Amino acid sequence: MNFKAGSYDVIVVGAGHAGCEAALAAARLGKKTLVITMSLESIAFMPCNPSIGGTGKGHLVREIDALGGEMGINIDKTFIQSRMLNTSKGPAVHSLRAQADKTLYHKEMKKTLEEEKNLDIVMDEVIELIYDENGVTGVLTQLRAQYDAKAVVLATGVYLKSKVFIGEVNFSSGPIGLSSAEQLSKSLKELDLPLRRFKTGTPARVHADSIDFSKMEIQYGDEEVVPFSFLNESLEKEQITCYLTRTTKKTHEIILANLERSSLYRGDMDSHGPRYCPSIEDKVVRFKDKETHQFFVEPEGLDTKEYYIQGFSSSLAYEVQLEMYHSVLGLENAKLMRPAYAIEYDCVDPLYLKPSLEIKSLNGLFSAGQFNGTSGYEEAAAQGLIAGINAALKIDEKEPFILDRSESYIGVLIDDLVTKGTNEPYRIMTSRAEYRLLLRQDNADLRLTQKGRDVGLVKEGRYNIFLEKKKAIENELKRLKTDKVKPDEANELLAEIGASPLSRTMSLYEFLKRPEVNYDFLKKIGKYNIELKKAVREQCEITSKYEGYIKKQMEQVEGFIKLERKKLPIDIDYSLIKGLRLEARQKLNDIRPLNIGQASRISGVSPADISVLLIYLQTLKAQKKSEENN
Amino acid sequence: MNFKAGSYDVIVVGAGHAGCEAALAAARLGKKTLVITMSLESIAFMPCNPSIGGTGKGHLVREIDALGGEMGINIDKTFIQSRMLNTSKGPAVHSLRAQADKTLYHKEMKKTLEEEKNLDIVMDEVIELIYDENGVTGVLTQLRAQYDAKAVVLATGVYLKSKVFIGEVNFSSGPIGLSSAEQLSKSLKELDLPLRRFKTGTPARVHADSIDFSKMEIQYGDEEVVPFSFLNESLEKEQITCYLTRTTKKTHEIILANLERSSLYRGDMDSHGPRYCPSIEDKVVRFKDKETHQFFVEPEGLDTKEYYIQGFSSSLAYEVQLEMYHSVLGLENAKLMRPAYAIEYDCVDPLYLKPSLEIKSLNGLFSAGQFNGTSGYEEAAAQGLIAGINAALKIDEKEPFILDRSESYIGVLIDDLVTKGTNEPYRIMTSRAEYRLLLRQDNADLRLTQKGRDVGLVKEGRYNIFLEKKKAIENELKRLKTDKVKPDEANELLAEIGASPLSRTMSLYEFLKRPEVNYDFLKKIGKYNIELKKAVREQCEITSKYEGYIKKQMEQVEGFIKLERKKLPIDIDYSLIKGLRLEARQKLNDIRPLNIGQASRISGVSPADISVLLIYLQTLKAQKKSEENN
Repeated sequence: MNFKAGSYDVIVVGAGHAGCEAALAAARLGKKTLVITMSLESIAFMPCNPSIGGTGKGHLVREIDALGGEMGINIDKTFIQSRMLNTSKGPAVHSLRAQADKTLYHKEMKKTLEEEKNLDIVMDEVIELIYDENGVTGVLTQLRAQYDAKAVVLATGVYLKSKVFIGEVNFSSGPIGLSSAEQLSKSLKELDLPLRRFKTGTPARVHADSIDFSKMEIQYGDEEVVPFSFLNESLEKEQITCYLTRTTKKTHEIILANLERSSLYRGDMDSHGPRYCPSIEDKVVRFKDKETHQFFVEPEGLDTKEYYIQGFSSSLAYEVQLEMYHSVLGLENAKLMRPAYAIEYDCVDPLYLKPSLEIKSLNGLFSAGQFNGTSGYEEAAAQGLIAGINAALKIDEKEPFILDRSESYIGVLIDDLVTKGTNEPYRIMTSRAEYRLLLRQDNADLRLTQKGRDVGLVKEGRYNIFLEKKKAIENELKRLKTDKVKPDEANELLAEIGASPLSRTMSLYEFLKRPEVNYDFLKKIGKYNIELKKAVREQCEITSKYEGYIKKQMEQVEGFIKLERKKLPIDIDYSLIKGLRLEARQKLNDIRPLNIGQASRISGVSPADISVLLIYLQTLKAQKKSEENN
Repeated sequence: MNFKAGSYDVIVVGAGHAGCEAALAAARLGKKTLVITMSLESIAFMPCNPSIGGTGKGHLVREIDALGGEMGINIDKTFIQSRMLNTSKGPAVHSLRAQADKTLYHKEMKKTLEEEKNLDIVMDEVIELIYDENGVTGVLTQLRAQYDAKAVVLATGVYLKSKVFIGEVNFSSGPIGLSSAEQLSKSLKELDLPLRRFKTGTPARVHADSIDFSKMEIQYGDEEVVPFSFLNESLEKEQITCYLTRTTKKTHEIILANLERSSLYRGDMDSHGPRYCPSIEDKVVRFKDKETHQFFVEPEGLDTKEYYIQGFSSSLAYEVQLEMYHSVLGLENAKLMRPAYAIEYDCVDPLYLKPSLEIKSLNGLFSAGQFNGTSGYEEAAAQGLIAGINAALKIDEKEPFILDRSESYIGVLIDDLVTKGTNEPYRIMTSRAEYRLLLRQDNADLRLTQKGRDVGLVKEGRYNIFLEKKKAIENELKRLKTDKVKPDEANELLAEIGASPLSRTMSLYEFLKRPEVNYDFLKKIGKYNIELKKAVREQCEITSKYEGYIKKQMEQVEGFIKLERKKLPIDIDYSLIKGLRLEARQKLNDIRPLNIGQASRISGVSPADISVLLIYLQTLKAQKKSEENN
């Protein structure tokens, strides 16, 4: 009954945020690609928060864009409010976040997929992987269609054996009433790929006309929108307003009095939820002293009355939910259009993945997104992009595309996953990036676009924009270092703003280091000749102001890179290396780090173990040399 | 665990085309209404053909609009191509059909529901009806929410225990990957409401770039669009093109050679499909002599590459489908994005319904749409509107709103259903309307808007448009009958177009009866003074030209109405009426017709039985009179 339905280079399973990036990346690298989704209506759908970005996540989107991915372009097309977060803090943690029109976001991404050459889209359900001793060879679908493939990317999101939990009620279902995928898990387990159950949740949606916005604080979008995509210099759009409100004492009382009616606390769920995106009952229980929690109330689109109640996910019984939401300021008469719920699904332990996102136990099988144990559209898209690229490179027998922790949040995300693993849905955060002063959202293109170009994903247009910007920054830095400012040129204005006067002539570059000096100031003293793009000014200002910190961090990176360059042969049998502790041997054999750096980050591998490994590598080198001499 | 979640006048189960009209009608009649849907993403979704109208169906939409329903307004907002069909034939069969942007149609209808006062929308699944000896009292949902209601409208579409069939493969699922509703059927069966299995099907969707349109015939939209809604005088919009193509000999060979791989022919389905919307294998088998079948290829929206292959539904195995579609002219290299499939679902025998669409066995429970055994969005919407109106009237203890066969297609549709029943998904057709010369799409407002006003659904704005139009027609008819045309005014022009000359002076009204004379002609001879709206001219022209036929049909209607006015008491025990044949007794007891007219249309009730009933009614009358006199 099974039949050969077609032959592809790359097959992507799922068309959520990971699947879309994976499919587009593979297709754009010239691979004949097929994406198989259970519903064409839910391509790039946002079943949770209708927004892209946020702290750390915004960085990922900028990096995806810098490499030639789609998420940034798509949110720029469909945002309805945009804000740069954390602007009162240093530039390392500035993070872009945009509210999307949910249906438009889906529609535009679907269109982009449909218009991509080399990319086919079919609605069907993958129920089995097909493989032989050399690796994956294809997939089998519910319609008994057998598609051959040289590489497969799993991006199954929350759909594998997904189960929805609302208080005492639970049932098999994907999000938004879609069917769950019940069959593929079995095939994955046969690969010696132990699956785990993770969970995530989403809050209720509330009808706008039932919200008393007068009790809430208004949250406007930025006047000057910073685009996500480096392809867009600026974006003009009418923006909607969001709102800020808070829980009351009563909210907390209701939750605490009804914990036994939460699926989570009832113990119905045998799974782990996202620590950094907890349910409201989790927040109230964990932070008992906190009298109130504040959260955003955001529209789901331009043409809908549905409002998203951010940070208010729950697995409480619907009865309790109604009471709980009604206890919130401004939601006293809220009409719920969708309930909050938790959803549980099968996913993989990412320690079973290589840094390329290839699954260790099956050649050519890659995975990305929530299936890898992460949470969030941005984390999913970032992995999807890398998995798609690596699937294509694998076919061409090229080295995998791996970003390290010193050059990108994507590197941090994937290195964390495949080196440290995770016991709960992993979320990116700026605090996870040790070199975060270098990994800013503003310089993602400077860090990554050349790499995207080298791998073939960055096309002419984007590359030229990047080269121009780079050149402009170089020129401007040169000008700043050459041109001088004399005390009598600046002191009057400095005095006006209560700043200390200049005592000597100095370069503009040096002058810009002063906290009170910026490009507006330079303009006022006539030291701002050419019309520079905002992004160029921003880079030069940061380069000048943070020069000391940046230099220090770059020195740290040098040390880091040294260790990353010390490659560990892929076929080492760590159990034979004397001096390694037992735990280290096991972990190293399991994870098989690519280099000493990665090895040093494995939990259970001590500095002493690393010393042993370094000695082992030297011995190996010496042996090799002597063999060559013979 | 169940809890009281709220109290409503009317609860509507399902938000497809029937559910939307029912909910809007009830809410607009001032009833506190709740619509419960399994997916907010599929409100007014078009899982099959993304179009509204067509022969007979277009009439229904105009009638829905004339009564104050929403379908006409919504398609006017979202159409991408519009055509008046059958214009080469008489005005009775002129039918409007418009292609919709599928996602926009959903989005606009969802917005309309959200904006409706008195109407709440929740995403949940109704799993049980609640009732007592007086009738329905509410519903219970999957989230254990118990909603009280004075009336409930079932509009479950194809979702009850729905099962998808594709060749040898079948699985529980609603359309487009949505879950089926597995639980409500049980509750319905407990009402002595025997459920049946019906089926319907949909063709594959094909990627535009894989279609060779050069092998197809282009089908343009009308230059001058006739709006569906009487609220819109005209509509200007850029329209897309559709295409016409045909099967080849090979197509038929493939189908005939693979019949055992069709779910239908395999006997997997224990259900009946729509005779007038057959699958391609049905067409090929039933019309063996026909060498080719032609069909339309239509885009699913403005921003998608998905094309709908009209009239090509199938339950053949996916493998055969691929071969079959590839044998069609222009589809040689077609890439299928969604497969064709058949879907089977629980529905009710409409003989269990009253003409008000109330279910006989449970007071206050109404039903509409595919659940009642029909096929088509328009049939569903028409019933939804009537069920919603009658649910509201029932609460107010008012007489039900029933349209008869002589005044509307809606009347034909519902009378057919509840009087004759149906063994397969029922589709409206102009041939089903015996008074179709009166039931034109152009005069739906003249037939029904006053009734919609009387029932409270037609608001000020629509009513004024209607009154103005009516007045304008009256005035113009008066003018046409008063003003004369003399031979010398017309004969020159008549000669020019080769028509016979006038031999005497006559009224313009009489003159218009000539086939070659129309308003353009009147204009040319200076007999067209005022700027009349097109719709007014059209009415006057039809009134003049078809006067004889119309008069004759109105006489027939008088006879019809006489019988419809002979009411049959609701509590007659037909088994006690002597002279009725056994079959008639049973059928009459089951169906309980409202009047002699309806009784005469019941299959199995003979003219002799009707005579018996007439005599019985006279006896009853005499008895009543004598009782009154005593």
